[in-house]
Amino acid sequence: MRTPRGPYAKSSAKRQQILDAALAAYADAGSRKVSVRDIAQRVGMTDAGVLHHFGNREALLAAVLEARDAAARAKYGDAHTDPGAGLRIVADNASTPGLVKLFVDVAAAAAEPGHPAHDWFADRYTKYRDSLTAQISDGLTRRPEAHADDPAPSHIDPEWAARILVAAVDGLQLQWLLEPGIDMAADLAALRNVLVNALRADGQPD
Amino acid sequence: MRTPRGPYAKSSAKRQQILDAALAAYADAGSRKVSVRDIAQRVGMTDAGVLHHFGNREALLAAVLEARDAAARAKYGDAHTDPGAGLRIVADNASTPGLVKLFVDVAAAAAEPGHPAHDWFADRYTKYRDSLTAQISDGLTRRPEAHADDPAPSHIDPEWAARILVAAVDGLQLQWLLEPGIDMAADLAALRNVLVNALRADGQPD
Repeated sequence: MRTPRGPYAKSSAKRQQILDAALAAYADAGSRKVSVRDIAQRVGMTDAGVLHHFGNREALLAAVLEARDAAARAKYGDAHTDPGAGLRIVADNASTPGLVKLFVDVAAAAAEPGHPAHDWFADRYTKYRDSLTAQISDGLTRRPEAHADDPAPSHIDPEWAARILVAAVDGLQLQWLLEPGIDMAADLAALRNVLVNALRADGQPD
Repeated sequence: MRTPRGPYAKSSAKRQQILDAALAAYADAGSRKVSVRDIAQRVGMTDAGVLHHFGNREALLAAVLEARDAAARAKYGDAHTDPGAGLRIVADNASTPGLVKLFVDVAAAAAEPGHPAHDWFADRYTKYRDSLTAQISDGLTRRPEAHADDPAPSHIDPEWAARILVAAVDGLQLQWLLEPGIDMAADLAALRNVLVNALRADGQPD
């Protein structure tokens, strides 16, 4: 008979061991691809044994992204409550391009309603937007405390504004696929105005 | 012997016919998937016959995205020179979710250096950023002319700012995978400051 400390606990520990191995494999791989085999070899299991713990490859990859979020939270703080944590996590992401690539691959695939990670991504976006909305509302009444280890804001210029606009076009598409009520064009028109006004106020030459 | 008006011209016309059929198939499909077979049936060809004109499925899909850009340019104007065209195109994209999904799928896959659309995406991003930079620089010295059919900017609020920040995180990742010199954290820190300052200036309550 199963008990909380029996097979279930063992399976959960094995699951976490696989996810830790997967994160380590991606960290070591740089921008090279990571296969299920790479992960399986690190924990001395077969590919099928690894997949058995998650159901299929898509579910394993979604669980790796979830474990990545948890690891980042443990290391840098909670981006949902700490305005600096999100930026520290983004800065650290640059050291693991394989995980960034995995994120964009799975985020694109998960826009499909039947994808195993569809609900997780939809929920992640909703929570992330809600907590950012609260942080921003909060920041309007008081200056957020500066964190010594926050990345310093770079000087803003037209090249920066162009990168941001292009990024917003691409990123809003992902949110809109999950939530068709988002008015992409209105959001982007407002952003363009805000960016141009910020550059004007910053006293950029032509 | 081949002449410019011989087999090459015929092949080029057939290629365009396939791309037109593909765009029509995506427009009709809404958010449902479009298969190579759907496209082939519209032009009375076999799947292999269609793929023969492009080399493989990835190259066909990249060509569909290129044809989509050309069709949007013909209909709404050139986003590279007309500040309103980009917004009109984004607004129209909402009527073809299948093509938006195709774009994010292929953009994610094309971050891989060996992908057939890798160079096209890298080039598209460079050109799009360059022309937006020029438009923004231009906009700093004179107000851009208003277009009667430009989507009206929505009122800005913290929820909008949160959508934009999350979108910029996702979208910058795609640019950074193609161009690792981009400092994502610095770009986002500057964006956060600009958004919060814009909301303050707009007189939002906390």
